[in-house]
Amino acid sequence: MSAEPQPSLDPAAESPAPDGTAYRIPSDTQSSMVFREIAAAAEEQRKRGGQVIVVQGLGFVGAAVAAAIASASDEAGQPLHYVVGIDLPTPESYWKIGKINEGEPPFRSPDTKLPEILREAVLERGNLRATTCEEAYALADVIVVDVHLDVEDRAAESVDGIRVGLAGFEAAMRTIGRNMRPDALVLVETTVPMGTCERVALPILQQERIRRGIREPVRLANAYERVMPGPGYVDSIRAFRRTYAGIDEESAERARAFLSTLIDVDEHPLWQLDDTVSSELGKLLENSYRSLNIAFMHEWTQLAEKIGVNLFEVVDSIRVRKGTHDNMRYPGFGVGGYCLTKDSLLAQWSAANLFGVETVLGMTLTGLKTNYEMPLHTLALAEELAGGEIAGKTIAVCGVSYLADVADTRNTPTETLLDALLEKGARPKVHDPHVVTWIERPSIEIHQSLAAALKGADGVVLAVPHGVYLKLSAEDLLAQLTPGAFVVDAQDILTDEKARLLWEAGRPVAGVGKGHWRTKGYHLSG
Amino acid sequence: MSAEPQPSLDPAAESPAPDGTAYRIPSDTQSSMVFREIAAAAEEQRKRGGQVIVVQGLGFVGAAVAAAIASASDEAGQPLHYVVGIDLPTPESYWKIGKINEGEPPFRSPDTKLPEILREAVLERGNLRATTCEEAYALADVIVVDVHLDVEDRAAESVDGIRVGLAGFEAAMRTIGRNMRPDALVLVETTVPMGTCERVALPILQQERIRRGIREPVRLANAYERVMPGPGYVDSIRAFRRTYAGIDEESAERARAFLSTLIDVDEHPLWQLDDTVSSELGKLLENSYRSLNIAFMHEWTQLAEKIGVNLFEVVDSIRVRKGTHDNMRYPGFGVGGYCLTKDSLLAQWSAANLFGVETVLGMTLTGLKTNYEMPLHTLALAEELAGGEIAGKTIAVCGVSYLADVADTRNTPTETLLDALLEKGARPKVHDPHVVTWIERPSIEIHQSLAAALKGADGVVLAVPHGVYLKLSAEDLLAQLTPGAFVVDAQDILTDEKARLLWEAGRPVAGVGKGHWRTKGYHLSG
Repeated sequence: MSAEPQPSLDPAAESPAPDGTAYRIPSDTQSSMVFREIAAAAEEQRKRGGQVIVVQGLGFVGAAVAAAIASASDEAGQPLHYVVGIDLPTPESYWKIGKINEGEPPFRSPDTKLPEILREAVLERGNLRATTCEEAYALADVIVVDVHLDVEDRAAESVDGIRVGLAGFEAAMRTIGRNMRPDALVLVETTVPMGTCERVALPILQQERIRRGIREPVRLANAYERVMPGPGYVDSIRAFRRTYAGIDEESAERARAFLSTLIDVDEHPLWQLDDTVSSELGKLLENSYRSLNIAFMHEWTQLAEKIGVNLFEVVDSIRVRKGTHDNMRYPGFGVGGYCLTKDSLLAQWSAANLFGVETVLGMTLTGLKTNYEMPLHTLALAEELAGGEIAGKTIAVCGVSYLADVADTRNTPTETLLDALLEKGARPKVHDPHVVTWIERPSIEIHQSLAAALKGADGVVLAVPHGVYLKLSAEDLLAQLTPGAFVVDAQDILTDEKARLLWEAGRPVAGVGKGHWRTKGYHLSG
Repeated sequence: MSAEPQPSLDPAAESPAPDGTAYRIPSDTQSSMVFREIAAAAEEQRKRGGQVIVVQGLGFVGAAVAAAIASASDEAGQPLHYVVGIDLPTPESYWKIGKINEGEPPFRSPDTKLPEILREAVLERGNLRATTCEEAYALADVIVVDVHLDVEDRAAESVDGIRVGLAGFEAAMRTIGRNMRPDALVLVETTVPMGTCERVALPILQQERIRRGIREPVRLANAYERVMPGPGYVDSIRAFRRTYAGIDEESAERARAFLSTLIDVDEHPLWQLDDTVSSELGKLLENSYRSLNIAFMHEWTQLAEKIGVNLFEVVDSIRVRKGTHDNMRYPGFGVGGYCLTKDSLLAQWSAANLFGVETVLGMTLTGLKTNYEMPLHTLALAEELAGGEIAGKTIAVCGVSYLADVADTRNTPTETLLDALLEKGARPKVHDPHVVTWIERPSIEIHQSLAAALKGADGVVLAVPHGVYLKLSAEDLLAQLTPGAFVVDAQDILTDEKARLLWEAGRPVAGVGKGHWRTKGYHLSG
């Protein structure tokens, strides 16, 4: 969600969902009618002793969070909360509201729980409603902030070059401040630069409330999300450890009480930190840790390939050291998604801009950059197998999303590969069984038929370990690949046996981290 | 152990142990007599159907490995092996032989198992003997290589500047080749650059054996050690996962069979890799991983201190993510020991010099350098608390070893701090309850009385979390510290409560990773 001030909209404007359905953005009059319904339902909920929760921003996090909150029940199975999801009346955002109000998740996911709890909440329990109405903030006991907050350029070359787009977040805070009840809790789940709650959100909320004559202290807390849009999408909200902190003890206590209604805190205890700066730092640190560990492995991947080592096997042999080495990463294609690709930049930006300190997170930033450029190593393997020149070659790129069997294409490394292929004059053909429309690159055709994508290709890059690729036999591939066409396996998709069969049948094969294939001569045709 | 060719020795030369005992280095005649005893005992063992194992190098690894091998028993409790430990007849090395033959471990350790199994082997079972006799290699079924192999400068500034002292290792291989039985297995446990077994050890062994007319193939394997000289010293050998690889399948099989006699492989299965290069890489990779993760945290430590965050608490809140983040390191003083401080350099050296590839392990090397310089951050805190000028100040440095409650001083970060203090004109006084003589810096007096070390000090650095420091109360410290003296806690030794009490009593306090102490004003006296 981008909450920047919007121009007045054409009341007949439509918002197209990635699956092709178009949703008509409601007029102000229509919105007001919807609001009256919501207000009445919220009133009902209050009468039953329940709370009203507004979730601001219905992206990958907010949509699932709204459904998870709506699924919270008392001992009798009755909803604990009435949930209102709010997003913007724009062509880019409104379709999510349309989907949710039909009882459907806006995003495809391998997790079957999400469609289930969402349908239940919207169509059976009737305690989840999505809207564009700002007035709905005034209904909330708790406002959960899941808005978009991004860097402007993930490939920033210097500390000074990092730009964080705070305007949307600031506008979102202003909207809340203008509408919120005096005693509502604002709970920031969005991943934010350290200091954002205290130094950005708090002053805005205070300012807006003072304008409204509200004198009570602001209740503001941070409880960063750890949502993973894979098979454990809903569990990453309801059955996962969470950290929180408040700007004062009352805020922290109210955050704890609220989170305890949707998380099984006996199984997954909450962790309170001293202040929101610590909590904000925690999120950026944990993702930077993961990011650096991926980048570290990429250095060793390049080495292992050159000296003939099968790095997957070596990593497996090391991961047996439980508790110290069992999270070592495997060689791979790259890093995508919303968090790992930017959180280190948020931390560095905050240090320089919100705190004015000179610390440079050198290795951390190098790690981020390494990950950003990682797909170029796969490209280099493809170029090598193409005999050094890839211009004019048709390259089938298999996999667009950044995670196996997920439709999420945000900052996918496939984009980096695609751009590099285009720049070098190659002709990429893209396939992904989970992605119909590539939201970020709508002009790129996504083949839904693998045979069509492979047909006539001079080479193939297996970029994402989707089940459909893992299941391909050597025979399947051989039947569809032109003789002499090469295969680059960027994600440990082919077994050694399949690689050998392909090579023996005249299809050169290279693999990221597969130094032993090079030793065996698989890189060379014939 | 340095196995370089030795000048003929004064037969009356002595070898002083760190505890002050001196051992007379035997003459050649004495050595020969010892050899006859050993040969007879080995012959006995063979008659009983057991094997003879020679361990080459009796340092931190070899001494404990020899004892662990000697502790291996058959079902009737009888020794499976007769073990001969070999080291050099030099003043620097011979004392280890003297100690072992008295049934005492050469190195102090908090692990009570080592003295027990060593005493048992030498004095009761009679199946462990240490000697300087090269001829003893001729007795061995298996020769376990635990010799020293080090870089010349841990602070190498460039890839080209990395120098690896292979001469000792090469001499050790030559000695083995000159003496070994044709069918003996050479098992390299020493951490070595990738390619060392195939490209360094193998040609030397072949050359020496050809000179002797031996035509059988060399049996050579790599099974890198994971020895940790802490409370789990012996368990890190007998009850720990191990990886191995042979230069051929027969070598691998014999390595597996031997390791299975001393490791409980049902509980801790062995892992075979395809080739010795992979196994050698595995060790360097696993230690580089650990090293980088320590360095990563140091970046964030500096940031956390500046923005007022208690990083220990944040790390704890993240480590609850089992399997992905539970090995996140804590802020600290620095990295010492033999492995983590050099293994990344061995990898880079091998890439450039044994394989001639251009890959640069950039982040990995930056991590190593960061760790090397880490104690200078503690120094900076001390300087800050000293009002910016530390020259002429008496600074008590508490802790010399690199691990809590261990006497191991190899490459201890305390040395970096000490050198920097001396260079800046400060007067360090050093205390460590576990270190009597600092082998690497024999001219430095190590106080055994904490009171004596603290007396008159202008400041104290708590550098190692020895139990004795953790147990100190604020009152203990206040009673011994001059009013106005400062305390720098580099290792999470003081609780928040103790820090507060010290500060309130006029002793400024700073802590590595303790940003919240700065926020509270503990850095400023009064």
